[in-house]
Amino acid sequence: MSSTAGQVIKCRAAVSWEAGKPLTIEEVEVAPPQAMEVRIKVLFTSLCHTDVYFWEAKGQKPMFPRIFGHEAAGIVESVGEGVTDLVPGDHVLPVFTGECKECAHCLSSDSNMCSLLRINTDRGVMLADGQSRFSINGQPIYHFLGTSTFSEYTVVHSGCVAKINPLAPLDKVCILSCGFCTGFGATVNVAKPPKGSAVAIFGLGAVGLSAAEGARVSGASRIIGVDINPNRFEEAKNFGVNEFVNPKDYDRPVQEVIAEMTNGGVDRSVECTGNIDAMISAFECVHDGWGVAVLVGVPHKDAVFKTHPVNFLNERTLKGTFYGHYKPRTDLPGVVEKYLNKEIELEKFITHEVSFSDINKAFDYMLQGASLRCIIRMVD
Amino acid sequence: MSSTAGQVIKCRAAVSWEAGKPLTIEEVEVAPPQAMEVRIKVLFTSLCHTDVYFWEAKGQKPMFPRIFGHEAAGIVESVGEGVTDLVPGDHVLPVFTGECKECAHCLSSDSNMCSLLRINTDRGVMLADGQSRFSINGQPIYHFLGTSTFSEYTVVHSGCVAKINPLAPLDKVCILSCGFCTGFGATVNVAKPPKGSAVAIFGLGAVGLSAAEGARVSGASRIIGVDINPNRFEEAKNFGVNEFVNPKDYDRPVQEVIAEMTNGGVDRSVECTGNIDAMISAFECVHDGWGVAVLVGVPHKDAVFKTHPVNFLNERTLKGTFYGHYKPRTDLPGVVEKYLNKEIELEKFITHEVSFSDINKAFDYMLQGASLRCIIRMVD
Repeated sequence: MSSTAGQVIKCRAAVSWEAGKPLTIEEVEVAPPQAMEVRIKVLFTSLCHTDVYFWEAKGQKPMFPRIFGHEAAGIVESVGEGVTDLVPGDHVLPVFTGECKECAHCLSSDSNMCSLLRINTDRGVMLADGQSRFSINGQPIYHFLGTSTFSEYTVVHSGCVAKINPLAPLDKVCILSCGFCTGFGATVNVAKPPKGSAVAIFGLGAVGLSAAEGARVSGASRIIGVDINPNRFEEAKNFGVNEFVNPKDYDRPVQEVIAEMTNGGVDRSVECTGNIDAMISAFECVHDGWGVAVLVGVPHKDAVFKTHPVNFLNERTLKGTFYGHYKPRTDLPGVVEKYLNKEIELEKFITHEVSFSDINKAFDYMLQGASLRCIIRMVD
Repeated sequence: MSSTAGQVIKCRAAVSWEAGKPLTIEEVEVAPPQAMEVRIKVLFTSLCHTDVYFWEAKGQKPMFPRIFGHEAAGIVESVGEGVTDLVPGDHVLPVFTGECKECAHCLSSDSNMCSLLRINTDRGVMLADGQSRFSINGQPIYHFLGTSTFSEYTVVHSGCVAKINPLAPLDKVCILSCGFCTGFGATVNVAKPPKGSAVAIFGLGAVGLSAAEGARVSGASRIIGVDINPNRFEEAKNFGVNEFVNPKDYDRPVQEVIAEMTNGGVDRSVECTGNIDAMISAFECVHDGWGVAVLVGVPHKDAVFKTHPVNFLNERTLKGTFYGHYKPRTDLPGVVEKYLNKEIELEKFITHEVSFSDINKAFDYMLQGASLRCIIRMVD
């Protein structure tokens, strides 16, 4: 039992007070975990586009003050009542979506969309009591995605915590808790490209490059990167991407370009931008008869996917996926093992590193398009 | 070697001279099969909606005079040069789509859309020489789907001919060459409903009921028939359909009705109408996390499939299929065996039977919606 168990912990957190304004490091009070909750000492966190998206609060309901952050790794400080599979000292990854192990989704081998703990971007409080565990001078600070890892300590539902091998370097595996798994899993768990196949990846940001890494690991021979930013092409080579298409270079739909390059279409495609036109292209560029397209990128709420139904009838498949189809608690420990066994490479995703007090630099790098992943060290 | 091999055969055929006008039984000349072709003595044929659709010629280029018919069973009369896997006397099913066994599709375990012999509704002649094998007083008569089974003898590419067990009753297994396999295969080969699952079938015609038969054989516990014609509900009970929804009974989208009935959606759906709204409903009525929708019905050429992409991202899958994903030559013999082993029931699809000279009655039954399948006996 740690000496802080059951006590309020005062620690530093990066608080976002207003949309789009720099975070400020504040002393916050972190309440003890309630039933089925876990308090985690966050050691490393990284910045993901989703943090930036909700921090900018363009298009969603603003919810401030809030503590963002959802890619992280840390150590369990204490657990609430009823938590039996985690103990203080466990090395863990908090995840923005959970696994209750009891609902229809958790009981299905096909789904990872837990009914109880599925991602909820609108909820800024804990599930148990509708309250926040964070406060500053009595003022509650909203949670984000149930993780709020931009804090030295955070409270997370135990169903959103994956216990991993304590030998894993937390400054690397922290990126598994969102971006890497989302892209990599979309390829290896859903698209499942056969060895020697041709795979198109739409969008060469961190998620798209993770999808490309999945294609590389699967033995795809042609990995075609599609992006409107040609600056990304050089970097993408490190992730197995060996052909490039910039839709802006053509005056016809990119799906036609890809079909010509590949004698009728790619075997698999993975869409990682969320742009609706890219989604349609990603679907229509797969080969008839056996092509499978997988959607990963989150679309605008008013977007409409449109295609001629004959594109389906010619035996194409379109699937969407969420968090790479990984069940967080069941599957993440195995992904960590793959990293430890050198089956997957994480280092190449980590382009920057900053101390916690410099967290706003991580936002700058991402906004400039300079970083894939910037690791934020919580302990100096 | 039959005495007619290499000779022109004069026989009866039902010729369609004009769109929508009754067929007339004529004496036609049937040329011998050329290289890789087979001449078949048709014993039983049945009428399918696709024959009626092209006979009505609403919306497609009219091509007359033409001999329709593509569901049939018969016996090989003679074979052309290069045909090594069929000999006179073989019991066969001609199929409207083929299997060359050499193209990328035939070599893929996932596709049955042979590049060489894929269905072609616009071609009214043989592939080899662009000529018809049928004529009346020197006037060529167009083929239909490469099968033209409304003739006592027909010439078919050998890649479109499935050799089957000679013990199989040809007056029953003839329906395997189109409708039954299209629906049944969509369920068992593509949708693959788990035992105990809930399956929605859109459209309760012959194809839809075949899809329902597939769900029954797969052990689905809820088979929900969706049709705007409630007269079909009683008959559908014989095919395992145990719940019914008439979209006209509701003032909200049928996908919402089905989701309410099934605690979030069916596990699988199969769309057999070709109506674009039904396609969208069939997709949107499957459960998030694991639902799979399969499109079978052929849409209008200007139809557009539209949905919010989040419906995919919530881990739904949409696939199209063609001829139930069966490779005709490789797979049909096995379907015939399933029938012989009483694993599938065909008799209940056969609601009518007429002699060849009464073939127009088969059209009447279908146009009245009175028949599922009407068998046409070629030999009185």
